[in-house]
Amino acid sequence: MGMIYNSCMKNDPLLPFFSPKGVVIVGVSRDPTKLGYMLASNLVQSGYQGAIHFVNPKGETLFGRRIYTRLADVPDPVDLALLLVPPPGVPAALEDVAARGIRAAVIQTGGFRETGPDGARLEQECLEIARKHGIRLVGPNCIGFIDTHLPINSTFLQPPGPPAGDIAFISHSGAICAAVMDWIRGQGNGLSNLASLGNCLDVSEADLLPVMAANPHAKVITLYMESVRNGADFIEKARLAARIKPVLALKVGRFESGKKAAASHTGALAGAESAFDAAFEKAGVIRVNTTEELFQWAKALAWCPLPKGRRVAILTNSGGPGVTAADALELNGLQLAQLSPATVEGMKSFLPAAASLHNPVDMLASANAEHFSRALELMMADDQVDSILVISPPPPPTTAAALIKAMVPVVLSHDKPVVFTMMGEDQVSEALALLHAYKIPDYRFPEWSASALGALSRYAEIKQRLMDENQAKAGKAPARATALLAAEPQGQFISPDAATGLLDAYQIATTPLTLCKTAEEAARQAGKTGYPVVLKIASPDIVHKSDIGGVLLGLKNAAEVAQGFAKVMERARAAQPDAKVDGVHIQRMLPAGQEVITGMVRDPMFGPMMMFGSGGVEVEGLKDVAFALAPLTFAEAEKMLEATWAGRKLRGFRSIPAGDREAVIDTLMKLSRLAVENPAILEMEINPLRVLPPGQGAYAVDVRIRKS
Amino acid sequence: MGMIYNSCMKNDPLLPFFSPKGVVIVGVSRDPTKLGYMLASNLVQSGYQGAIHFVNPKGETLFGRRIYTRLADVPDPVDLALLLVPPPGVPAALEDVAARGIRAAVIQTGGFRETGPDGARLEQECLEIARKHGIRLVGPNCIGFIDTHLPINSTFLQPPGPPAGDIAFISHSGAICAAVMDWIRGQGNGLSNLASLGNCLDVSEADLLPVMAANPHAKVITLYMESVRNGADFIEKARLAARIKPVLALKVGRFESGKKAAASHTGALAGAESAFDAAFEKAGVIRVNTTEELFQWAKALAWCPLPKGRRVAILTNSGGPGVTAADALELNGLQLAQLSPATVEGMKSFLPAAASLHNPVDMLASANAEHFSRALELMMADDQVDSILVISPPPPPTTAAALIKAMVPVVLSHDKPVVFTMMGEDQVSEALALLHAYKIPDYRFPEWSASALGALSRYAEIKQRLMDENQAKAGKAPARATALLAAEPQGQFISPDAATGLLDAYQIATTPLTLCKTAEEAARQAGKTGYPVVLKIASPDIVHKSDIGGVLLGLKNAAEVAQGFAKVMERARAAQPDAKVDGVHIQRMLPAGQEVITGMVRDPMFGPMMMFGSGGVEVEGLKDVAFALAPLTFAEAEKMLEATWAGRKLRGFRSIPAGDREAVIDTLMKLSRLAVENPAILEMEINPLRVLPPGQGAYAVDVRIRKS
Repeated sequence: MGMIYNSCMKNDPLLPFFSPKGVVIVGVSRDPTKLGYMLASNLVQSGYQGAIHFVNPKGETLFGRRIYTRLADVPDPVDLALLLVPPPGVPAALEDVAARGIRAAVIQTGGFRETGPDGARLEQECLEIARKHGIRLVGPNCIGFIDTHLPINSTFLQPPGPPAGDIAFISHSGAICAAVMDWIRGQGNGLSNLASLGNCLDVSEADLLPVMAANPHAKVITLYMESVRNGADFIEKARLAARIKPVLALKVGRFESGKKAAASHTGALAGAESAFDAAFEKAGVIRVNTTEELFQWAKALAWCPLPKGRRVAILTNSGGPGVTAADALELNGLQLAQLSPATVEGMKSFLPAAASLHNPVDMLASANAEHFSRALELMMADDQVDSILVISPPPPPTTAAALIKAMVPVVLSHDKPVVFTMMGEDQVSEALALLHAYKIPDYRFPEWSASALGALSRYAEIKQRLMDENQAKAGKAPARATALLAAEPQGQFISPDAATGLLDAYQIATTPLTLCKTAEEAARQAGKTGYPVVLKIASPDIVHKSDIGGVLLGLKNAAEVAQGFAKVMERARAAQPDAKVDGVHIQRMLPAGQEVITGMVRDPMFGPMMMFGSGGVEVEGLKDVAFALAPLTFAEAEKMLEATWAGRKLRGFRSIPAGDREAVIDTLMKLSRLAVENPAILEMEINPLRVLPPGQGAYAVDVRIRKS
Repeated sequence: MGMIYNSCMKNDPLLPFFSPKGVVIVGVSRDPTKLGYMLASNLVQSGYQGAIHFVNPKGETLFGRRIYTRLADVPDPVDLALLLVPPPGVPAALEDVAARGIRAAVIQTGGFRETGPDGARLEQECLEIARKHGIRLVGPNCIGFIDTHLPINSTFLQPPGPPAGDIAFISHSGAICAAVMDWIRGQGNGLSNLASLGNCLDVSEADLLPVMAANPHAKVITLYMESVRNGADFIEKARLAARIKPVLALKVGRFESGKKAAASHTGALAGAESAFDAAFEKAGVIRVNTTEELFQWAKALAWCPLPKGRRVAILTNSGGPGVTAADALELNGLQLAQLSPATVEGMKSFLPAAASLHNPVDMLASANAEHFSRALELMMADDQVDSILVISPPPPPTTAAALIKAMVPVVLSHDKPVVFTMMGEDQVSEALALLHAYKIPDYRFPEWSASALGALSRYAEIKQRLMDENQAKAGKAPARATALLAAEPQGQFISPDAATGLLDAYQIATTPLTLCKTAEEAARQAGKTGYPVVLKIASPDIVHKSDIGGVLLGLKNAAEVAQGFAKVMERARAAQPDAKVDGVHIQRMLPAGQEVITGMVRDPMFGPMMMFGSGGVEVEGLKDVAFALAPLTFAEAEKMLEATWAGRKLRGFRSIPAGDREAVIDTLMKLSRLAVENPAILEMEINPLRVLPPGQGAYAVDVRIRKS
């Protein structure tokens, strides 16, 4: 079994964690109440075929094996050390590991960063020792690894371990592992791998993704995440894994994502969770909301072929659950398939006249095993049907097991997903055992079946997208942009001229903005620009200019411009007496058009995150915005448009004329490149971006850019 | 046990369904494969204390009892007939029931309306016979009733029946009943009552609500609904029941609620499900999304005291599940309690220094049963904590059962809800049995616990509201309104003058609208009204006037009015050449202010349903609207404002000045009375309602009213 890892991880320093030649437990115990005993017991009983060694200063024997008093005495082969010594002893143990020539260690002991600053220092000391000697570390504060196929169990969890199965589970939390194993067993399911990572001092969740993606026993990868160690690394590895098999993540810690003070609308609207959502979207990772969803969906994703579309047929023998399922399909973004005439005619030939032959198909309570299997066969052959949901409420005429026996061959002989709802509990246990034996997913309620089919469809679409789509590319910033930015002060909004210049450098259309210090200068400039013009207060300290009446629109002549100058100066003085005011900006007034907002905030974990949506003064109240991580492809930018009303109505709506959608998408893509290529930029916002009729472009009317 | 029903249902014709003196099964069978045998067997074995009689033309005996060949021969006492004869024989059987003096019958046979027009006719015939003789009917096409406390089981479901418990389950679907019973048993739960209503020919779900509300064994009422028989009746009875105990409903059939063609925005936005949502809101019924939620929430609602607020404390021995729970609390609208200093200090005295003493409290893996119970006791005594979520991942140092044993006395000695998350499956079974014995709710995952606590908080708030709030009252329409409406043609939009007159009759402020047939007349009227004015095309055939450019704003003098007249006439001709055009309407132009939409559609099931939200041309795209059933109380109208951005921003937002919220609420309440008191109105819409600054009122700028 280790062959798999050896071939896909050739010379990978992580190989010993997955397929060690020999394992040594440092800190083994002969006391059955200690974790060091449990760990040794699990390792010995797991069926692991490599060498097993024990170390404890007290010596003696355990399970008929010698306990070495010093790691140095342990014979070959040994390439993985499991450390269960008290926290203060871990650094010394790591030195011993290095001296023995071992380059992979799991620190299973707790009592590090999670307990406070002292623990964090100790952890850092361990990392330095490991780096010095080229040792890779898993943990600390973790439970260990399980591979049910290799097999190996290097955890100290109470037996029995998880049944062998198809789901890989990677977890930041150790506490949840035991519960998940117990629950999975109760559900008739199993794990291919379990990896508890603890504090992720060195080896991270991202590091495990390529290994699990290459492991043929893992049909689906599930993650319980509290954070990511490195955002870009996670996205890249998750994206590659998701091309091969489904990756599901439960990301917890939402309630800790407090709001930061933000100077822009984009910043105010972007919580830390928006960045995680955007990262999962980019990587093709399906985010689940609950622990139960993680494993209920994993079951279907591990066992079913992928559907070709979203059209689902429902087969049942009673009305109520069929209706419930139909509702649930709709809530999960699926459609009721329109059965083809051949299917309907075929069913008519053997079902009672009162049966309902249109989706959901209700064969009535008299339906027997043959009816179920024949109807299922017809649906399997129907091109109008992409997947099938079979519901069996406890049937009076026959047993649930008899129904399943008749249907299993039909399911296995086609390449179309079928999910069963076996309603009830005790009365369906035999049927469930049969389904599990053939790896056909089952649920107790129609709603779970529908949501699992939804997950199958979502993954089918994700896989297609990841296969088709090249990642957006960013390169080197144009020299002009770099120079412009370098000249501006740090930690502030850059000047409007510099901001316009940056957009220019990326061919984002702007309405040039000219600073005028006096009313006369403003009137002269307006004459050059051409009337009507817009006049805006020019001040680095006044952020939301329209809030203080600092923006005047549609000034038609020199007199209006001169009066306007005086007016906004007075308003600025009244509203913010201490603000530095440089004068006003004069700008050409664009033709009418829809107005949208687009912006960027730099997420500390995932880098530049783009926003698009409804702009104007109500942007923060309306919250009609979408986020995605830069750089953006055409498809990603278009998806942001489709996710918002602001974007959808660019197609035109009632009396609202259509706008230049392509120009908006182009602007989003360019702005995302600008963000990636100029890391000195902390925040940007174009508000509004005026969208002219199709073919006429989109113009940044106001832009604000802040350096970090 | 029958005492309970006898006292609360004195002389109620439904009493025999719940507590019959004697039951006769018409259509009993001696063949163990037949439903007529199963029904007899269940009834005999259920422990029912009244008389049991069997009827079948073939005679003989069953279970040592005589089978009468004719119903007429059955001796007293007998007041309930269970009919299991083939459909065509049911009318004759009902005549026999009447002749024998029985006034309550359950038609358990299927094959009526659910099979098509012939079945529907047969059903109608049965109803007529029942009406003629004063017989109340349950069914047809139903499974029957169970009362686990009386006890009685008049269903033909395979044994065993449900364990005795605290949850009443009323279902339109028979098929789901067996599954629910089996599942509930597997969960360690039980039912007080099960009632399968089938086609609801006579006795409806609403009829059962007062009975279940009065039954002390039913701590919570759960409904599986496909429809309601009578909307107003359901709301009234559900509202009264929800004052006494929680009512949860799973309403299925969403996917069947197709969109009707609608002439107004309100009509287009209101799906049939909006009416159900509004009805449940009005009645205080909690709508669940899945079958599982129905029973998971019912468990907590049946067993826990109600929380005083939304502040939840989490007690656990490991970080991951605590974080998961905290997230889930937030998603369920709950808050993490801020523990009082006394609680934190108290825990510090016995927990390790590294334990996290702030909510979520993580006592670390070393926590034992005493730690759990002492910490729980402190939280119970803490006034800052309204409810508690205890999480036990499978703990290595002790068993789950030992933890529960220590905590049960603490839970029972306080009046504060505690919900347990016992993670795992097999390893926690002993602990679960203990919790169930003491009626303390448990879940396998923290997310379920959090959602159950959310349901508890929601019901606590609903109960408070229902106790505090009087229902909105509507009376008789003012004579002027009745006369105005009567004069208008049916099935059409009424004239603008009549519409304005109707609003006037309810003291809803309008901007009077005057019809002018010529440009000169329009200019003259504008002079009277005072400039600036609005000019609108007057045509019964042009519904969305601004879409065709038929509305001109801010006309400042007679010349502009005259030109405007010509312009809109031409546009109307161009856009809808066949439209009947009466001229134009001239209207005073109001000062600036926020604009909202409010409207009404008459739901066939629940009557007038009010809408409020963001108006203007984007109303259908933006979908920022809320619905509620008329008549509205102040609180209900205010809730509609708070549910929409249009309503929230009436408080003012950034540079948007505040509007007269009270005037909007007042308008909604008056419009809802108008809708209730004038049933001839099918649809109404005020769009926009211009909201002036606080204290200055809200004006209906445009109103459209359609008669049925």
